[in-house]
Amino acid sequence: MNLQTLDDVLVDQLGDLLDAEKQLVQALPKMASAASDEKLQKAFKEHLSETRDHVSRLEDIFGRLGKQPPRETCKAMQGLVAEGEEIIAAQGDPAAKDAALIAAAQRVEHYEIAGYGTAKTLADQLGHGDAKDLLDQTLDEESQADTLLTKIATGGRMKSGVNEAAKR
Amino acid sequence: MNLQTLDDVLVDQLGDLLDAEKQLVQALPKMASAASDEKLQKAFKEHLSETRDHVSRLEDIFGRLGKQPPRETCKAMQGLVAEGEEIIAAQGDPAAKDAALIAAAQRVEHYEIAGYGTAKTLADQLGHGDAKDLLDQTLDEESQADTLLTKIATGGRMKSGVNEAAKR
Repeated sequence: MNLQTLDDVLVDQLGDLLDAEKQLVQALPKMASAASDEKLQKAFKEHLSETRDHVSRLEDIFGRLGKQPPRETCKAMQGLVAEGEEIIAAQGDPAAKDAALIAAAQRVEHYEIAGYGTAKTLADQLGHGDAKDLLDQTLDEESQADTLLTKIATGGRMKSGVNEAAKR
Repeated sequence: MNLQTLDDVLVDQLGDLLDAEKQLVQALPKMASAASDEKLQKAFKEHLSETRDHVSRLEDIFGRLGKQPPRETCKAMQGLVAEGEEIIAAQGDPAAKDAALIAAAQRVEHYEIAGYGTAKTLADQLGHGDAKDLLDQTLDEESQADTLLTKIATGGRMKSGVNEAAKR
Protein backbone atom coordinates (compact mmCIF):
# COMPACT_ATOMS: atom_id res chain seq x y z
CA MET A 1 0.00 0.00 0.00
CA ASN A 2 1.26 3.45 -0.94
CA LEU A 3 -0.50 6.47 0.57
CA GLN A 4 1.14 9.57 -0.88
CA THR A 5 -1.92 11.83 -0.93
CA LEU A 6 -5.37 12.19 0.59
CA ASP A 7 -6.74 11.03 -2.80
CA ASP A 8 -4.84 7.75 -2.30
CA VAL A 9 -6.54 7.36 1.08
CA LEU A 10 -9.97 8.01 -0.47
CA VAL A 11 -9.37 5.46 -3.26
CA ASP A 12 -8.24 2.89 -0.68
CA GLN A 13 -11.36 3.54 1.43
CA LEU A 14 -13.65 3.24 -1.60
CA GLY A 15 -11.92 0.03 -2.74
CA ASP A 16 -12.39 -1.47 0.70
CA LEU A 17 -16.08 -0.49 0.73
CA LEU A 18 -16.62 -1.91 -2.77
CA ASP A 19 -15.25 -5.30 -1.75
CA ALA A 20 -17.21 -5.14 1.53
CA GLU A 21 -20.49 -4.49 -0.31
CA LYS A 22 -19.80 -7.32 -2.78
CA GLN A 23 -19.20 -9.72 0.11
CA LEU A 24 -22.45 -8.53 1.66
CA VAL A 25 -24.39 -9.23 -1.57
CA GLN A 26 -23.30 -12.87 -1.14
CA ALA A 27 -24.00 -12.99 2.61
CA LEU A 28 -27.42 -11.31 2.90
CA PRO A 29 -29.47 -14.05 1.16
CA LYS A 30 -28.08 -16.56 3.71
CA MET A 31 -28.98 -14.20 6.56
CA ALA A 32 -32.52 -13.85 5.14
CA SER A 33 -32.92 -17.64 4.84
CA ALA A 34 -31.71 -18.17 8.41
CA ALA A 35 -34.11 -15.56 9.88
CA SER A 36 -37.41 -16.80 11.35
CA ASP A 37 -39.16 -13.48 11.99
CA GLU A 38 -40.97 -12.28 8.87
CA LYS A 39 -40.07 -8.62 9.36
CA LEU A 40 -36.42 -9.59 9.73
CA GLN A 41 -36.49 -11.73 6.58
CA LYS A 42 -38.03 -8.80 4.71
CA ALA A 43 -35.47 -6.33 6.10
CA PHE A 44 -32.57 -8.53 4.96
CA LYS A 45 -34.09 -8.97 1.49
CA GLU A 46 -34.72 -5.26 1.08
CA HIS A 47 -31.23 -4.45 2.27
CA LEU A 48 -29.85 -6.89 -0.32
CA SER A 49 -31.50 -4.80 -3.03
CA GLU A 50 -30.03 -1.61 -1.51
CA THR A 51 -26.62 -3.24 -1.20
CA ARG A 52 -26.62 -3.99 -4.95
CA ASP A 53 -27.30 -0.26 -5.49
CA HIS A 54 -24.39 0.57 -3.17
CA VAL A 55 -22.06 -1.52 -5.36
CA SER A 56 -23.27 0.34 -8.49
CA ARG A 57 -22.88 3.69 -6.76
CA LEU A 58 -19.28 2.93 -5.78
CA GLU A 59 -18.48 1.82 -9.35
CA ASP A 60 -20.07 5.07 -10.56
CA ILE A 61 -17.86 7.05 -8.15
CA PHE A 62 -14.70 5.31 -9.39
CA GLY A 63 -15.73 6.28 -12.95
CA ARG A 64 -16.32 9.91 -11.95
CA LEU A 65 -12.94 10.06 -10.20
CA GLY A 66 -11.26 8.48 -13.24
CA LYS A 67 -9.78 5.75 -11.03
CA GLN A 68 -9.73 1.96 -11.26
CA PRO A 69 -10.99 0.17 -8.14
CA PRO A 70 -7.94 -1.34 -6.41
CA ARG A 71 -7.87 -5.13 -6.05
CA GLU A 72 -8.63 -5.20 -2.38
CA THR A 73 -10.11 -7.70 0.03
CA CYS A 74 -11.96 -6.18 2.95
CA LYS A 75 -10.67 -8.39 5.76
CA ALA A 76 -12.94 -6.82 8.35
CA MET A 77 -16.01 -7.76 6.29
CA GLN A 78 -14.61 -11.30 5.90
CA GLY A 79 -14.57 -11.49 9.70
CA LEU A 80 -18.03 -9.96 10.04
CA VAL A 81 -19.45 -12.43 7.49
CA ALA A 82 -17.72 -15.34 9.26
CA GLU A 83 -19.38 -14.29 12.52
CA GLY A 84 -22.75 -14.17 10.75
CA GLU A 85 -22.17 -17.67 9.41
CA GLU A 86 -21.47 -18.98 12.91
CA ILE A 87 -24.89 -17.70 13.97
CA ILE A 88 -26.57 -19.10 10.83
CA ALA A 89 -25.11 -22.51 11.75
CA ALA A 90 -25.99 -22.22 15.47
CA GLN A 91 -28.43 -24.52 17.22
CA GLY A 92 -31.16 -23.11 19.40
CA ASP A 93 -34.37 -21.16 19.72
CA PRO A 94 -35.47 -19.35 16.51
CA ALA A 95 -36.13 -16.03 18.29
CA ALA A 96 -32.76 -16.14 20.12
CA LYS A 97 -31.05 -16.86 16.79
CA ASP A 98 -32.91 -13.93 15.22
CA ALA A 99 -31.66 -11.66 18.03
CA ALA A 100 -28.10 -12.83 17.33
CA LEU A 101 -28.55 -12.36 13.55
CA ILE A 102 -29.70 -8.78 14.20
CA ALA A 103 -26.65 -8.18 16.41
CA ALA A 104 -24.34 -9.45 13.64
CA ALA A 105 -26.10 -7.34 11.00
CA GLN A 106 -25.90 -4.20 13.14
CA ARG A 107 -22.14 -4.69 13.51
CA VAL A 108 -21.97 -4.81 9.70
CA GLU A 109 -24.09 -1.66 9.38
CA HIS A 110 -21.93 0.25 11.86
CA TYR A 111 -18.78 -0.88 10.09
CA GLU A 112 -20.18 0.51 6.86
CA ILE A 113 -21.41 3.70 8.55
CA ALA A 114 -17.84 4.34 9.70
CA GLY A 115 -16.46 3.60 6.22
CA TYR A 116 -18.94 5.78 4.36
CA GLY A 117 -18.60 8.54 6.98
CA THR A 118 -14.84 8.69 6.38
CA ALA A 119 -15.14 8.41 2.58
CA LYS A 120 -17.79 11.16 2.47
CA THR A 121 -15.64 13.50 4.57
CA LEU A 122 -12.57 12.86 2.40
CA ALA A 123 -14.56 13.33 -0.85
CA ASP A 124 -15.92 16.62 0.52
CA GLN A 125 -12.52 17.89 1.61
CA LEU A 126 -11.04 16.98 -1.79
CA GLY A 127 -13.80 18.85 -3.64
CA HIS A 128 -15.43 15.74 -5.18
CA GLY A 129 -18.98 17.03 -4.67
CA ASP A 130 -20.77 14.38 -6.78
CA ALA A 131 -18.95 11.56 -5.03
CA LYS A 132 -19.75 13.12 -1.66
CA ASP A 133 -23.48 13.26 -2.50
CA LEU A 134 -23.55 9.63 -3.68
CA LEU A 135 -21.69 8.47 -0.55
CA ASP A 136 -24.15 10.46 1.55
CA GLN A 137 -27.11 8.63 -0.03
CA THR A 138 -25.59 5.27 0.86
CA LEU A 139 -24.68 6.47 4.35
CA ASP A 140 -28.34 7.42 4.90
CA GLU A 141 -29.52 3.99 3.74
CA GLU A 142 -27.04 2.20 6.02
CA SER A 143 -28.19 4.31 8.98
CA GLN A 144 -31.85 3.61 8.18
CA ALA A 145 -31.11 -0.14 7.92
CA ASP A 146 -29.48 0.02 11.37
CA THR A 147 -32.47 1.86 12.87
CA LEU A 148 -34.90 -0.65 11.36
CA LEU A 149 -32.93 -3.56 12.86
CA THR A 150 -33.07 -1.93 16.30
CA LYS A 151 -36.84 -1.59 15.90
CA ILE A 152 -37.23 -5.25 14.89
CA ALA A 153 -35.12 -6.30 17.91
CA THR A 154 -36.77 -4.14 20.54
CA GLY A 155 -40.26 -3.79 19.01
CA GLY A 156 -40.24 -0.04 19.66
CA ARG A 157 -42.85 1.27 22.09
CA MET A 158 -44.91 -1.92 21.91
CA LYS A 159 -41.90 -3.96 23.10
CA SER A 160 -43.13 -6.71 20.82
CA GLY A 161 -39.82 -7.36 19.09
CA VAL A 162 -37.61 -10.37 18.51
CA ASN A 163 -35.83 -9.90 21.86
CA GLU A 164 -39.09 -10.13 23.82
CA ALA A 165 -40.05 -13.24 21.85
CA ALA A 166 -36.68 -14.77 22.78
CA LYS A 167 -37.35 -14.18 26.48
CA ARG A 168 -40.47 -16.34 26.48
CA MET B 1 -22.82 -22.31 19.17
CA ASN B 2 -26.05 -22.94 21.04
CA LEU B 3 -28.47 -20.02 21.46
CA GLN B 4 -31.42 -21.28 23.52
CA THR B 5 -32.22 -18.06 25.36
CA LEU B 6 -31.64 -14.31 25.17
CA ASP B 7 -29.13 -14.76 28.02
CA ASP B 8 -27.13 -17.05 25.71
CA VAL B 9 -27.11 -14.28 23.11
CA LEU B 10 -25.92 -11.74 25.70
CA VAL B 11 -23.11 -14.04 26.92
CA ASP B 12 -22.03 -14.62 23.30
CA GLN B 13 -22.01 -10.86 22.63
CA LEU B 14 -20.00 -10.15 25.80
CA GLY B 15 -17.52 -12.93 24.97
CA ASP B 16 -17.00 -11.48 21.51
CA LEU B 17 -16.46 -8.00 22.94
CA LEU B 18 -14.01 -9.30 25.56
CA ASP B 19 -11.84 -10.93 22.89
CA ALA B 20 -12.17 -7.84 20.67
CA GLU B 21 -10.97 -5.54 23.48
CA LYS B 22 -8.05 -7.85 24.29
CA GLN B 23 -6.98 -7.80 20.63
CA LEU B 24 -7.23 -4.02 20.70
CA VAL B 25 -4.95 -3.80 23.77
CA GLN B 26 -2.28 -5.48 21.60
CA ALA B 27 -3.00 -3.36 18.49
CA LEU B 28 -3.24 0.18 19.90
CA PRO B 29 0.44 0.58 20.90
CA LYS B 30 1.39 -0.23 17.27
CA MET B 31 -1.15 2.31 15.99
CA ALA B 32 0.29 4.93 18.39
CA SER B 33 3.86 4.22 17.23
CA ALA B 34 2.83 4.47 13.57
CA ALA B 35 1.04 7.83 14.04
CA SER B 36 2.95 11.02 13.21
CA ASP B 37 0.53 13.63 14.49
CA GLU B 38 1.06 14.27 18.21
CA LYS B 39 -2.64 14.57 19.01
CA LEU B 40 -3.29 11.27 17.25
CA GLN B 41 -0.48 9.52 19.14
CA LYS B 42 -1.94 10.85 22.39
CA ALA B 43 -5.48 9.77 21.44
CA PHE B 44 -4.33 6.20 20.72
CA LYS B 45 -2.36 6.05 23.99
CA GLU B 46 -5.27 7.36 26.04
CA HIS B 47 -7.66 4.97 24.35
CA LEU B 48 -5.29 2.11 25.20
CA SER B 49 -5.73 2.96 28.87
CA GLU B 50 -9.52 3.09 28.43
CA THR B 51 -9.47 -0.20 26.51
CA ARG B 52 -7.75 -1.90 29.47
CA ASP B 53 -10.60 -0.59 31.65
CA HIS B 54 -13.10 -2.01 29.14
CA VAL B 55 -11.52 -5.46 29.52
CA SER B 56 -11.80 -5.21 33.34
CA ARG B 57 -15.40 -4.00 33.09
CA LEU B 58 -16.38 -6.96 30.91
CA GLU B 59 -14.69 -9.39 33.32
CA ASP B 60 -16.58 -7.68 36.14
CA ILE B 61 -19.87 -8.14 34.22
CA PHE B 62 -19.20 -11.87 33.69
CA GLY B 63 -18.64 -12.15 37.46
CA ARG B 64 -21.88 -10.33 38.25
CA LEU B 65 -23.81 -12.56 35.82
CA GLY B 66 -22.19 -15.67 37.36
CA LYS B 67 -20.99 -16.76 33.91
CA GLN B 68 -17.62 -17.83 32.55
CA PRO B 69 -16.43 -15.91 29.46
CA PRO B 70 -16.79 -18.26 26.48
CA ARG B 71 -13.58 -19.14 24.60
CA GLU B 72 -14.29 -16.99 21.62
CA THR B 73 -12.21 -15.32 18.92
CA CYS B 74 -13.67 -12.12 17.52
CA LYS B 75 -13.03 -12.67 13.82
CA ALA B 76 -14.28 -9.22 12.86
CA MET B 77 -11.69 -7.60 15.14
CA GLN B 78 -9.01 -9.87 13.65
CA GLY B 79 -9.94 -8.41 10.25
CA LEU B 80 -10.05 -4.86 11.58
CA VAL B 81 -6.62 -5.25 13.19
CA ALA B 82 -5.22 -6.79 9.96
CA GLU B 83 -6.45 -3.74 8.04
CA GLY B 84 -4.78 -1.46 10.60
CA GLU B 85 -1.52 -3.39 10.18
CA GLU B 86 -1.63 -2.90 6.40
CA ILE B 87 -1.75 0.85 6.99
CA ILE B 88 1.00 0.71 9.61
CA ALA B 89 3.19 -1.06 7.01
CA ALA B 90 2.19 1.30 4.16
CA GLN B 91 4.65 3.59 2.40
CA GLY B 92 3.81 7.23 1.84
CA ASP B 93 3.24 10.66 3.32
CA PRO B 94 2.99 10.77 7.15
CA ALA B 95 -0.20 12.90 7.13
CA ALA B 96 -1.90 10.65 4.54
CA LYS B 97 -0.96 7.62 6.64
CA ASP B 98 -2.39 9.35 9.73
CA ALA B 99 -5.66 9.95 7.86
CA ALA B 100 -5.79 6.24 6.98
CA LEU B 101 -4.95 5.22 10.58
CA ILE B 102 -7.84 7.39 11.79
CA ALA B 103 -10.16 5.75 9.24
CA ALA B 104 -9.14 2.28 10.47
CA ALA B 105 -9.56 3.28 14.11
CA GLN B 106 -13.02 4.76 13.47
CA ARG B 107 -14.14 1.48 11.89
CA VAL B 108 -12.98 -0.23 15.09
CA GLU B 109 -14.85 2.29 17.26
CA HIS B 110 -18.07 1.87 15.27
CA TYR B 111 -17.78 -1.91 15.44
CA GLU B 112 -17.52 -1.64 19.22
CA ILE B 113 -20.34 0.93 19.40
CA ALA B 114 -22.60 -1.60 17.64
CA GLY B 115 -21.48 -4.41 19.94
CA TYR B 116 -21.93 -2.44 23.16
CA GLY B 117 -25.22 -1.00 21.91
CA THR B 118 -26.62 -4.50 21.43
CA ALA B 119 -25.17 -5.84 24.70
CA LYS B 120 -26.53 -2.88 26.67
CA THR B 121 -30.03 -3.34 25.18
CA LEU B 122 -30.01 -7.08 25.94
CA ALA B 123 -28.74 -6.53 29.50
CA ASP B 124 -31.50 -3.96 30.04
CA GLN B 125 -34.23 -6.19 28.64
CA LEU B 126 -33.02 -9.09 30.79
CA GLY B 127 -33.08 -6.96 33.96
CA HIS B 128 -29.28 -6.93 34.49
CA GLY B 129 -29.22 -3.27 35.58
CA ASP B 130 -25.61 -3.23 36.87
CA ALA B 131 -24.31 -4.81 33.67
CA LYS B 132 -26.34 -2.34 31.61
CA ASP B 133 -24.81 0.63 33.46
CA LEU B 134 -21.25 -0.68 33.03
CA LEU B 135 -21.84 -1.34 29.31
CA ASP B 136 -23.24 2.17 28.99
CA GLN B 137 -20.06 3.68 30.47
CA THR B 138 -17.93 1.87 27.90
CA LEU B 139 -20.33 2.79 25.09
CA ASP B 140 -19.92 6.46 26.06
CA GLU B 141 -16.14 6.18 26.00
CA GLU B 142 -16.15 4.47 22.58
CA SER B 143 -18.41 7.21 21.20
CA GLN B 144 -16.18 9.93 22.66
CA ALA B 145 -13.10 8.24 21.14
CA ASP B 146 -14.84 8.23 17.75
CA THR B 147 -15.76 11.93 18.06
CA LEU B 148 -12.18 12.83 19.05
CA LEU B 149 -10.81 10.98 16.00
CA THR B 150 -13.18 12.91 13.71
CA LYS B 151 -11.93 16.15 15.27
CA ILE B 152 -8.28 15.17 14.78
CA ALA B 153 -9.01 14.29 11.12
CA THR B 154 -11.03 17.35 10.20
CA GLY B 155 -9.59 19.86 12.67
CA GLY B 156 -13.09 21.03 13.62
CA ARG B 157 -13.96 24.63 12.76
CA MET B 158 -10.33 25.59 12.23
CA LYS B 159 -10.00 22.92 9.50
CA SER B 160 -6.45 22.39 10.75
CA GLY B 161 -6.64 18.61 11.02
CA VAL B 162 -4.67 15.68 9.68
CA ASN B 163 -6.71 15.60 6.44
CA GLU B 164 -5.83 19.21 5.57
CA ALA B 165 -2.17 18.49 6.29
CA ALA B 166 -2.36 15.51 3.91
CA LYS B 167 -3.70 17.76 1.12
CA ARG B 168 -0.62 19.99 1.18
